[in-house]
Amino acid sequence: MNKNRLEAFSDGVLAIILTIMVLEMKVPHGADWAMLQPVLPVFFSYVLSFVYIGIYWNNHHHLLHAVKRVNGPVLWANLHLLFWLSLLPFVTGWMGENHFAPVPTTLYGVVLLASGGAYNLLARCLIRTQGEGSVLARAMQRDRKGWLSLGAYLLAIILSFVAHWLSQLLYVAVALMWLVPERRIERVLKEDCEAGEQ
Amino acid sequence: MNKNRLEAFSDGVLAIILTIMVLEMKVPHGADWAMLQPVLPVFFSYVLSFVYIGIYWNNHHHLLHAVKRVNGPVLWANLHLLFWLSLLPFVTGWMGENHFAPVPTTLYGVVLLASGGAYNLLARCLIRTQGEGSVLARAMQRDRKGWLSLGAYLLAIILSFVAHWLSQLLYVAVALMWLVPERRIERVLKEDCEAGEQ
Amino acid sequence: MNKNRLEAFSDGVLAIILTIMVLEMKVPHGADWAMLQPVLPVFFSYVLSFVYIGIYWNNHHHLLHAVKRVNGPVLWANLHLLFWLSLLPFVTGWMGENHFAPVPTTLYGVVLLASGGAYNLLARCLIRTQGEGSVLARAMQRDRKGWLSLGAYLLAIILSFVAHWLSQLLYVAVALMWLVPERRIERVLKEDCEAGEQ
Amino acid sequence: MNKNRLEAFSDGVLAIILTIMVLEMKVPHGADWAMLQPVLPVFFSYVLSFVYIGIYWNNHHHLLHAVKRVNGPVLWANLHLLFWLSLLPFVTGWMGENHFAPVPTTLYGVVLLASGGAYNLLARCLIRTQGEGSVLARAMQRDRKGWLSLGAYLLAIILSFVAHWLSQLLYVAVALMWLVPERRIERVLKEDCEAGEQ
Repeated sequence: MNKNRLEAFSDGVLAIILTIMVLEMKVPHGADWAMLQPVLPVFFSYVLSFVYIGIYWNNHHHLLHAVKRVNGPVLWANLHLLFWLSLLPFVTGWMGENHFAPVPTTLYGVVLLASGGAYNLLARCLIRTQGEGSVLARAMQRDRKGWLSLGAYLLAIILSFVAHWLSQLLYVAVALMWLVPERRIERVLKEDCEAGEQ
Repeated sequence: MNKNRLEAFSDGVLAIILTIMVLEMKVPHGADWAMLQPVLPVFFSYVLSFVYIGIYWNNHHHLLHAVKRVNGPVLWANLHLLFWLSLLPFVTGWMGENHFAPVPTTLYGVVLLASGGAYNLLARCLIRTQGEGSVLARAMQRDRKGWLSLGAYLLAIILSFVAHWLSQLLYVAVALMWLVPERRIERVLKEDCEAGEQ
Repeated sequence: MNKNRLEAFSDGVLAIILTIMVLEMKVPHGADWAMLQPVLPVFFSYVLSFVYIGIYWNNHHHLLHAVKRVNGPVLWANLHLLFWLSLLPFVTGWMGENHFAPVPTTLYGVVLLASGGAYNLLARCLIRTQGEGSVLARAMQRDRKGWLSLGAYLLAIILSFVAHWLSQLLYVAVALMWLVPERRIERVLKEDCEAGEQ
Repeated sequence: MNKNRLEAFSDGVLAIILTIMVLEMKVPHGADWAMLQPVLPVFFSYVLSFVYIGIYWNNHHHLLHAVKRVNGPVLWANLHLLFWLSLLPFVTGWMGENHFAPVPTTLYGVVLLASGGAYNLLARCLIRTQGEGSVLARAMQRDRKGWLSLGAYLLAIILSFVAHWLSQLLYVAVALMWLVPERRIERVLKEDCEAGEQ
């Protein structure tokens, strides 16, 4: 089965998730700078979620780049990931409109944790179709950043009951960690090419 | 005529239907867990409809995979299917906001029945362009799951006047039945390959 | 310059226009059949506009199928067409919510007329890039349906000041006329092939 | 890394930005021409922003046309551009609903300036992947229109504190300047071909 439509569909869903989040920033009724103040927390939560969707698009791009075939379970694992990411606009709006209050901060972490888990599941499904010796399988073996993120989300959820600003700090930290582009798959691919040339 | 643009357009429409359904989950004004309670039924109807759109995307993918040429009637049969699916966000929101009340449950079944019928019509249009002996025609001959679904929707519509929770059970059951990936076309394709090799 | 991105972008915009029109059908607060009554005119205007967007997508598909190169003016003529079509959700919502009142009926006709004119302009821009002897140029020479539509929209705009139900009848009639698939370009292409074979 | 998904994702985001801006034009409750009057300034700001998104799509198309490879920094520079453009619906709605008042006019300029800067950054990232002697590098050396636009946005932001109608004039003037299609890259490409033929 062809991976093109899977990529096109995922791109479509991610592009829409990205863009409808901006709809949560309601246009204020008044033309002063002061009118922008209630929009500011919504704006900050939008920036955070924009970066997260960007990270997922980027990693999804890398993940499928190393893949040739997809099958039924992969299609559903991909939809499962898109489902959790589709809840991001809701929790982003909730967290923003309530000025990063504790409960929405917890739920934001839950959605991030579920998305991270769904991504991990998708990667495993893809590895099963590719074989254990594939480029992807070897790249994922050293997936320290992925596990670190899942741990950070879990910690943030727990912390949100005590000091929710620490959770928010963790969300920002994980995002910054991923902004450094994904070199793992590129590295293994490169090693592969060099090995092939010898 | 090329099938690529048909696929791209359908992917776009399905991706948007999937994503705007989440807009029906209105961000609550308040930051307690209790504020999420009125959102819960909307969330459950969202999950159900997400799975249905996922099923249609999956099956659409398989259906067109086995196809090379499309023509005018196919383009319109496809738009007809997209029309009924585009009503899903409306009935999903209506059913969710009214806590799965009887009348919205009936209408939900009507939209599912019409979508199922439209899918069947699209498959027939495609078979006409492919020929009766094509892979697609043979795969569709044993389309037990398709007819079973149409029957279940009809039964659910009737039951919704008596015991609407039975209808909802049927909607979930049909969705679960389809979550098992579509093996029919794959099987016939495989038989074809094996026959060709002999 | 490649036509693929032009097609992909147009598909995206048309898919979104199609789908956001359904957002004008506001979910009613109440679970009776009677609650659907105020939604009905919005639903009818949605069906009409859905068919029109379907017609434009279909014709756009055919138009670009016969084309190999695009240039700057074509990109802008295409955006010009998408601009007018992007106003369709607004006039559809306005006409539907006001039960097909005269003034929204007039404006609906104005948007249809402008869209039709923009399509004509796009076709001319494409013919200029293809040459006067091209398949497209010959197909467009007999563009009776296109001119008939423009005339009908104009007539409908004038009639809307006197008897707006006649205008609505004209909108439906034009849509029905186009539902018959576009055979012109296919016919000329076929003649071409046959001429080439001799 | 392939540029196709980058193009497809950008097309998707730009198509959605274009189309959700029309959602700011709220359907009026009443069927008279007079009801359209409050919508008019929102309509004018929509037209302006539609043209700007059209310009960015057009230039993005040209920019990536001259490119073969993309890498991590390019993906993020592209997302950075899309982020600023995604704020356009918000500032368009704010400027329109407040009848082009001074403060929203300033903010509109800020978003245009940031978008222009992000485009410039993306072009530089692409040049780094292509090499200094590439078609793109030479085309961008004479990027007078790009720098002129950035200067005009800056001037418009300053002027908006004194005479905001001058800022709006500048926004329109810059848009008109870009409506003339991008000939720079085409010219250099042509010179290249001619040089190659000698």
